[in-house]
Amino acid sequence: MARDPFVVIGGDAAGLSAASKFRRETDREVVVFERGQWISYAHCGEPYFVEGSVERLTDLLSLSPADVAERGIDLRRGHEVVAVSPEDRTVTVRADGNRFDQPYGELLVATGASAATGPFDTTLDGVFTIHGLDSAAAVDAFLSLPGEYDRGRLGDGPVDEARIDHNAALDPPERAAIVGGGYVGVEMAEALTARGLDVHLFQRTDHVLDPFGAAVGERVESHLADRDVAVHTGRPVGELLGDDRVEAVAYDGERLPVDMAVIGIGVEPNAGFLDGTGVERGPKGAIRTDDYGRTSLPAVYAAGDVATARHAVTGEQTWIPLGLTANRAGRAIGATVAGDPTPVGDVAGTAVVKAFDLECGRVGFIDETAAEDAGFDPASATITAGSRSGYYPGGDETSVTLVADRTTGRVLGGAIAGRDRAAIRIDTLATAIESDLTVDELERLDLAYAPPFSPVWDPVLVAAKVLNGRLDD
Amino acid sequence: MARDPFVVIGGDAAGLSAASKFRRETDREVVVFERGQWISYAHCGEPYFVEGSVERLTDLLSLSPADVAERGIDLRRGHEVVAVSPEDRTVTVRADGNRFDQPYGELLVATGASAATGPFDTTLDGVFTIHGLDSAAAVDAFLSLPGEYDRGRLGDGPVDEARIDHNAALDPPERAAIVGGGYVGVEMAEALTARGLDVHLFQRTDHVLDPFGAAVGERVESHLADRDVAVHTGRPVGELLGDDRVEAVAYDGERLPVDMAVIGIGVEPNAGFLDGTGVERGPKGAIRTDDYGRTSLPAVYAAGDVATARHAVTGEQTWIPLGLTANRAGRAIGATVAGDPTPVGDVAGTAVVKAFDLECGRVGFIDETAAEDAGFDPASATITAGSRSGYYPGGDETSVTLVADRTTGRVLGGAIAGRDRAAIRIDTLATAIESDLTVDELERLDLAYAPPFSPVWDPVLVAAKVLNGRLDD
Repeated sequence: MARDPFVVIGGDAAGLSAASKFRRETDREVVVFERGQWISYAHCGEPYFVEGSVERLTDLLSLSPADVAERGIDLRRGHEVVAVSPEDRTVTVRADGNRFDQPYGELLVATGASAATGPFDTTLDGVFTIHGLDSAAAVDAFLSLPGEYDRGRLGDGPVDEARIDHNAALDPPERAAIVGGGYVGVEMAEALTARGLDVHLFQRTDHVLDPFGAAVGERVESHLADRDVAVHTGRPVGELLGDDRVEAVAYDGERLPVDMAVIGIGVEPNAGFLDGTGVERGPKGAIRTDDYGRTSLPAVYAAGDVATARHAVTGEQTWIPLGLTANRAGRAIGATVAGDPTPVGDVAGTAVVKAFDLECGRVGFIDETAAEDAGFDPASATITAGSRSGYYPGGDETSVTLVADRTTGRVLGGAIAGRDRAAIRIDTLATAIESDLTVDELERLDLAYAPPFSPVWDPVLVAAKVLNGRLDD
Repeated sequence: MARDPFVVIGGDAAGLSAASKFRRETDREVVVFERGQWISYAHCGEPYFVEGSVERLTDLLSLSPADVAERGIDLRRGHEVVAVSPEDRTVTVRADGNRFDQPYGELLVATGASAATGPFDTTLDGVFTIHGLDSAAAVDAFLSLPGEYDRGRLGDGPVDEARIDHNAALDPPERAAIVGGGYVGVEMAEALTARGLDVHLFQRTDHVLDPFGAAVGERVESHLADRDVAVHTGRPVGELLGDDRVEAVAYDGERLPVDMAVIGIGVEPNAGFLDGTGVERGPKGAIRTDDYGRTSLPAVYAAGDVATARHAVTGEQTWIPLGLTANRAGRAIGATVAGDPTPVGDVAGTAVVKAFDLECGRVGFIDETAAEDAGFDPASATITAGSRSGYYPGGDETSVTLVADRTTGRVLGGAIAGRDRAAIRIDTLATAIESDLTVDELERLDLAYAPPFSPVWDPVLVAAKVLNGRLDD
């Protein structure tokens, strides 16, 4: 008798990477259940679609259902897995109003995450999260004049037509509140400014891009302000006001009239359907996994935004949902299930984002309290240095924050901001951190130098030099 | 009695880095002998001065003699050290037609390198090497119409006036031959094209930028050709022809009329004055040093373009003269001599260069024969991948060559070319190589991803993935 198939729940980055790799390595059957209609799309591109720098919504798709079929994957869209029975090794699937049980040989949970909405009323017109192509499309339609939305923007995909129609009929907004100054908030501030809106960005804590540290945060705030984004830091939004359509945000006893709001306060793992299975959880309720993406349930794997991953600095399971992690873990699990055990790899929390032309990157531990909580004795330095030789035109002051452990000298984290090739420099620090380099070793790295690209001492090396001096004290 | 001073020969990157660091750490005397008049200048900026993107020659200076004096350094320009007596611990100095002996407590040889000229007649008018501010200034004067040279370009420095006058009086050239397709050759091709010349670049071997490997070389050649540079690869120039002024280059039985020639065929260490001291030599006659920059002579150090350095991949002493190495080794030796033993650090052969808007980087071993000679069993892969998410505008195809050892999986070298932030990505590979990562570990690095800066799989990761697959075979 043939073994039961490899069943994958979720048809996005992790799920389809796993199924594709699996099918390249074996002839066994793989079934992918996707509850929605879209598959394999680039979440991270959504703000750029709204901005207009991406021409068509469907440009954000990596694979079509036909591509997936060609790879020999049995993809079932509109199929929601509502329960898992680890004892029977079956999943319960709901589709077209019916339910059926599907046995699995191995199971991959790759259900991703959903936008958190906190206390905010997202049923009001003009209120959006940016998570999924339908929400990006809805915003785009909402920004057009009634009756004038260019549906060519949507391309040929399974778009939620009713939602488009509804938003395209509304009066376009003039002023938007963005609640939350994370990636989505900063990127949407840029996108909505490009679309001509008056944009107010609200951040609960003292600085936008909190995980990037204060130095980057301050620089981004000032850069946003230069581009006419009103930045309100340390101002938690309490409520969105309005009857049918959002009319104002209430914060700190004040009230700002707006006719659009974007909620960008983070994401939550889509793991509720596993309640009752006894699967072990990690931070924020994400599914706890090991170095091979295995959960605590037999033959059940998890990958992507729904799963934990091992942190390169602490060695502990953490939850940092990002695109590369999902793709890599999916691919590794596909290989493992096919018979070639492959570690999913660590995460270092490497992330890059731009605010207009200001590039920012971060990796590892930047917040000293978090580093202390993880058992380190952190020291940090923040420097600014030119991105090119001073005499060569086109450079920009580049800020680098570097954090290391006093006891071992090991580099724990770093952040970079600047307008000239700043973001991609974070990969140097990511590599150093995953290689357990000390600040001393970092300072002596033979990094590239040529006037158009770097001064003799790259900003990363300058930061290492300064922090190293501090560690010697 | 006070100890004899720390004596430094050479007032450029290595020498003044050493003297400056030494003076920050101690009150002892440091004397720097510089045979020329210029100090502390950026060799690497000279092509950009000729091009016109650097406004003034003196913009290329890092430190003025007054800055140096302020650091408490006894700088003597126009002082040439002609001999060293390790037994007496003295150097013999020639200045203003006189000679004197200077005792040293410790000695640093930081005399740099000079442009090689091979068999070419550099006494002809219109023939230049690009090594030193006077040569850059001479080229700039030569490119102007007779009597119309703007001396404001020179700034206020100790320029060789007679050489400027001579070159400024000559008819400007229309067609230049560049002999040698290394850094200087490629940069000067760009610079002279910008100055309106018809440029012919001759490269002895099959590809320009030989140390970057064939994939980068081919791409640069095609990019140069697109910008109307005539590239002649595999065509060694035999001779420069002319009576007073260069009139043609002879190559391969052919003859191309030119009225300017730039010789860029490499550099040679300035170590001849040590003949007879018995100092140990390394590759190309460079002074052999250890991990602290010590030579085989007691209390004698060497740093910068005149010295060897330890290769990060092989652990052997090698000679790769580049700017960061000089600055770093000088600084380390300054600390060591002051009483804080500091390793000079390894070199990985990291280098970046641009050809118009095409950015290139290289590190470690790319040539497989060289890797075999060093005892490795190399395998390599060359890939091209987008620099950004495919849907995001402004990206460029990025070529990555990656070389690893089959036996250990260790990354040995790599090269990158592309127009979008390609060069600085080499720092990721430099860090990986200096950290002894395997291709497997490289493939699993948590590198940055965001649509404007990188696709989900950065080109470096794509190369690792492909090479890893090849190593498994």
